[in-house]
Amino acid sequence: MEEAVLRQLFERHFPAWAHMSEDDRAALIRNTAPVSYKKGVCVHGAESECIGILLIRKGMLRTYLLSEEGREVTLFRLREGDLCILSASCVMEAITFDVHVDAEEDTDALLINASFFSQLTERNIYVECSAYKTTVERFSDVMWAMQQILFMSMDKRLAVFLWDELSKTQGNTVRLTHEQIARYIGSAREVVSRMLKYFASEGIVELSRGGIRILDKGKLRGFI
Amino acid sequence: MEEAVLRQLFERHFPAWAHMSEDDRAALIRNTAPVSYKKGVCVHGAESECIGILLIRKGMLRTYLLSEEGREVTLFRLREGDLCILSASCVMEAITFDVHVDAEEDTDALLINASFFSQLTERNIYVECSAYKTTVERFSDVMWAMQQILFMSMDKRLAVFLWDELSKTQGNTVRLTHEQIARYIGSAREVVSRMLKYFASEGIVELSRGGIRILDKGKLRGFI
Repeated sequence: MEEAVLRQLFERHFPAWAHMSEDDRAALIRNTAPVSYKKGVCVHGAESECIGILLIRKGMLRTYLLSEEGREVTLFRLREGDLCILSASCVMEAITFDVHVDAEEDTDALLINASFFSQLTERNIYVECSAYKTTVERFSDVMWAMQQILFMSMDKRLAVFLWDELSKTQGNTVRLTHEQIARYIGSAREVVSRMLKYFASEGIVELSRGGIRILDKGKLRGFI
Repeated sequence: MEEAVLRQLFERHFPAWAHMSEDDRAALIRNTAPVSYKKGVCVHGAESECIGILLIRKGMLRTYLLSEEGREVTLFRLREGDLCILSASCVMEAITFDVHVDAEEDTDALLINASFFSQLTERNIYVECSAYKTTVERFSDVMWAMQQILFMSMDKRLAVFLWDELSKTQGNTVRLTHEQIARYIGSAREVVSRMLKYFASEGIVELSRGGIRILDKGKLRGFI
């Protein structure tokens, strides 16, 4: 990738760029490599070595917890322009947990290698600060997810999820499988299917192979 | 409180102290007041104004989520020497959630007022960085709690909790009510009581008014 393109991307999405010396900028560019992940691929596993910081250029990553029994709970998703810090948790002293990260779509990203990033945070407080600040933003996402999972009844959770998806896509159809939805909202496929059938019987949604079409937004809103 | 005492406390427990100017140190001391909370008192509520940063001198604070129906889920506890940052969430841009904080025991603390702290983080990157780093440490605590709540079966959760309490107190007795334990592990009192009765029937614990005496550590360990 051309250096000018990298510089532009860092300037826009790497918060401490303005506070870095020209030497450190050059070193950052040398220690960054383009990576691509096919949809569904594991980007970072709880037991795998930590790869480094990812700056997403295209696509989407999903961060989740995985239980010993294989149950997944989605924490948050990252999109274009977002930094994935938890894939470098090994070099961040204050992060003592580990998560899984999958490519939710075909994803292109820039990978800053972990040991270089670690050195950079040690010599530049602005880099360290922005890494922790970004992590705290993800903490906020996790707290939101946790409240959904712990406190909301299933109908409300599903309604909130469909509502959020609608506002993202600006259409009437949510193109996800019941399995995918179950993962997003930390539930089981059977539970989601049952609740969707109930929503269909109430005339709120129409279920088809292509996804879930929302027929009555007002009624859906009523569950939230 | 004497200035020399305050200086000593900040030097030991306020990570950015070494990176502050003498002027800022003096201002920090002027903007700090001793506070005391009786056991059971609410220190910070989700709807209340945010009070500022607390440096705990004695006692214990409990941070928890509260559902609309009144269900509590404990996230972490803070002890002597710990900084409570989430009680100043309003001045931390990256924190978009809110939690409840109660005094778990009679607690003495130093309160750094929120608006001064906000100004200080703006002009001193080390203060900002340490505040975010401390928040990320709490993120780690929350992730631990979340995995317990989401993935562990009740018997395991209770056994882990009793085991942790034992190792803290160095005795054989956990002096907490079933209600308190339920709060800590994010469950209901009835569920805890039922499981404790089961543990008692297995000869693992002995229940009395004063608390829960562990009779068989080996068996308890077997649940973990």
